[in-house]
Amino acid sequence: MSRFFSEKYRTLKAYTPGEQPQERKYIKLNTNENPFPPGEWVAEAVREETANLRLYSDPESGKLRKVLSERLGLKPENLIMTNGSDEGLNYAFMAFCDGNHPAVFPDITYGFYPVFARINGVPFREIPLRADWTVSPEDYADAGGPVFLANPNAPTGIFLPLEGIEMILQENPNNVVIVDEAYVDFGGESALKLLGKYENLLVIQTFSKSRSLAGLRLGFAAGSEALIRDLKAMQYSTNPYNVDRLAQTAGIACLERDEYNLRNAEEIGKTRAWVKTEMEKLGFQITDSRANFLFVHHSAFPGSTLRDRLRERGILIRWFDQERIRDWNRISIGTRADMKTLLAELSAL
Amino acid sequence: MSRFFSEKYRTLKAYTPGEQPQERKYIKLNTNENPFPPGEWVAEAVREETANLRLYSDPESGKLRKVLSERLGLKPENLIMTNGSDEGLNYAFMAFCDGNHPAVFPDITYGFYPVFARINGVPFREIPLRADWTVSPEDYADAGGPVFLANPNAPTGIFLPLEGIEMILQENPNNVVIVDEAYVDFGGESALKLLGKYENLLVIQTFSKSRSLAGLRLGFAAGSEALIRDLKAMQYSTNPYNVDRLAQTAGIACLERDEYNLRNAEEIGKTRAWVKTEMEKLGFQITDSRANFLFVHHSAFPGSTLRDRLRERGILIRWFDQERIRDWNRISIGTRADMKTLLAELSAL
Repeated sequence: MSRFFSEKYRTLKAYTPGEQPQERKYIKLNTNENPFPPGEWVAEAVREETANLRLYSDPESGKLRKVLSERLGLKPENLIMTNGSDEGLNYAFMAFCDGNHPAVFPDITYGFYPVFARINGVPFREIPLRADWTVSPEDYADAGGPVFLANPNAPTGIFLPLEGIEMILQENPNNVVIVDEAYVDFGGESALKLLGKYENLLVIQTFSKSRSLAGLRLGFAAGSEALIRDLKAMQYSTNPYNVDRLAQTAGIACLERDEYNLRNAEEIGKTRAWVKTEMEKLGFQITDSRANFLFVHHSAFPGSTLRDRLRERGILIRWFDQERIRDWNRISIGTRADMKTLLAELSAL
Repeated sequence: MSRFFSEKYRTLKAYTPGEQPQERKYIKLNTNENPFPPGEWVAEAVREETANLRLYSDPESGKLRKVLSERLGLKPENLIMTNGSDEGLNYAFMAFCDGNHPAVFPDITYGFYPVFARINGVPFREIPLRADWTVSPEDYADAGGPVFLANPNAPTGIFLPLEGIEMILQENPNNVVIVDEAYVDFGGESALKLLGKYENLLVIQTFSKSRSLAGLRLGFAAGSEALIRDLKAMQYSTNPYNVDRLAQTAGIACLERDEYNLRNAEEIGKTRAWVKTEMEKLGFQITDSRANFLFVHHSAFPGSTLRDRLRERGILIRWFDQERIRDWNRISIGTRADMKTLLAELSAL
């Protein structure tokens, strides 16, 4: 850090994204990317839109919000588009947390939540998952601040049924409950359907996973008009043109033939079930994941060892240097061929 | 605002971007967009890169930083790429300002600076420009906090020669001096050449203006490795994948044939000189702008009136509801044809 760096951040620990190797070719099962490319019609729409790049993007993402709101049965005013869902999560930390309203989330969850809290200078409280890594909704009664729940959770993949989400919403009438549904399309059920019922519900989704647009940075938050106005104030106070023209265009093209993405998500779900069965035969313990990854443990391999061994064999998986999960690994679901290679290498090990 | 919105932002006033009309066709001279599209090779590069959109972008923007650093005679470690230059400016407010280090900037400048200060909960101090709207460097001696200088300044277009910048750098050994060079390619001189000499200098530029990529959101900050590390910590604590694949690709393509952009910038400079002369004949008072816009005043038209009259005639220009400049307007330089239409309408008025 430079000597000009603000005191307030002296102990800051930034988020560590999964490795994005540029030099050699790996089978990348470390950042939950979709093995299927976006449809060709997305590339075509993007190509056409390049003619307009000299002009700023619409800071309201008006056309995209219209298409998306129709698809979700909402009004455009219930939506804000963001530069990936990380940006929407950060807006929520900014808008709803402060010294008197700590962020509240599970001890094992998306590793970015504590980072968002620290960068915004707000306290946070971690609530331990049960021993089986499920969320205990009663632990969140009167949470004392905004609740952040990844559902399905990361990196466990475990899904909390909507009854649990509703219990938390009901027990927190004065706290926003943010449901981070990055992985919901791979086998969860979205809390979007609860939006009309709870003014304290904010749902965050991304186009990075089930819609194969990780490289384009597009996400959204859905909630009451008032909550969305709060987040818009964050956008217009930091980066009004946060979502670029090509991302808006690709998002629309993507939604116009969304059945393609849903089919891919279903296929990934099938591959996940097959890989799980095969890995269990090899002695792995595996959670009931509803996401596009498996969370796995083998008594013969500490998490970091398995990661290193597979890396030598040209396969990247994720390991988190964190209490309770150090012996585990997260493995993204790739193509059938990728996963066959993985299973062969695991057998060899 | 919702009842969940944090108290700390109750008085927040967000930035108001220039209008981006979606419905009807205007001659847009209100947001300083480049009248020339990016080169065809940019569109071609973008088209090819769409094949990789399922994969996250490189959070380091490694290839782009390499190309850009070679072009600027710097090391890649001296550069951070951002989602437009607004994001880089926000990172600087986050990293270098706090309760003891107020942001310092001119009273007439880019209207986003006070917004960045408010959203980050840091104080700011405005230093009045001289009566002729030039910056008085001696007013910034021992500024007491990071200094933000748009150069050329917005919306005046007036350029502070590098001697002035150096004086401010020398008088502020303990403060970062951020030179925001969004418009420098249209007739200013970049402070990039001073980087080796001052560890407290941070230069911020954008691909939105002279490189015709406003719709794609790409900017960068250049400074000592230590300052850049500070800004990287902000990026990795808010949105590590801030710059998407297509923006990185377009940036590289753009730089590979940068002479195209420089030629366009020169052409815009010539158009600016011609329009200035013609408008002066019509009785306008006009600053000596080195940017891709003119800052103009006519005694017969208060600023808001001129804006409204031109809007009725299908031309958008910018007016700022702010002390000292309420009688003025900012007019972007478009194509020769656009400007001919403008001059005709002004004559008619």
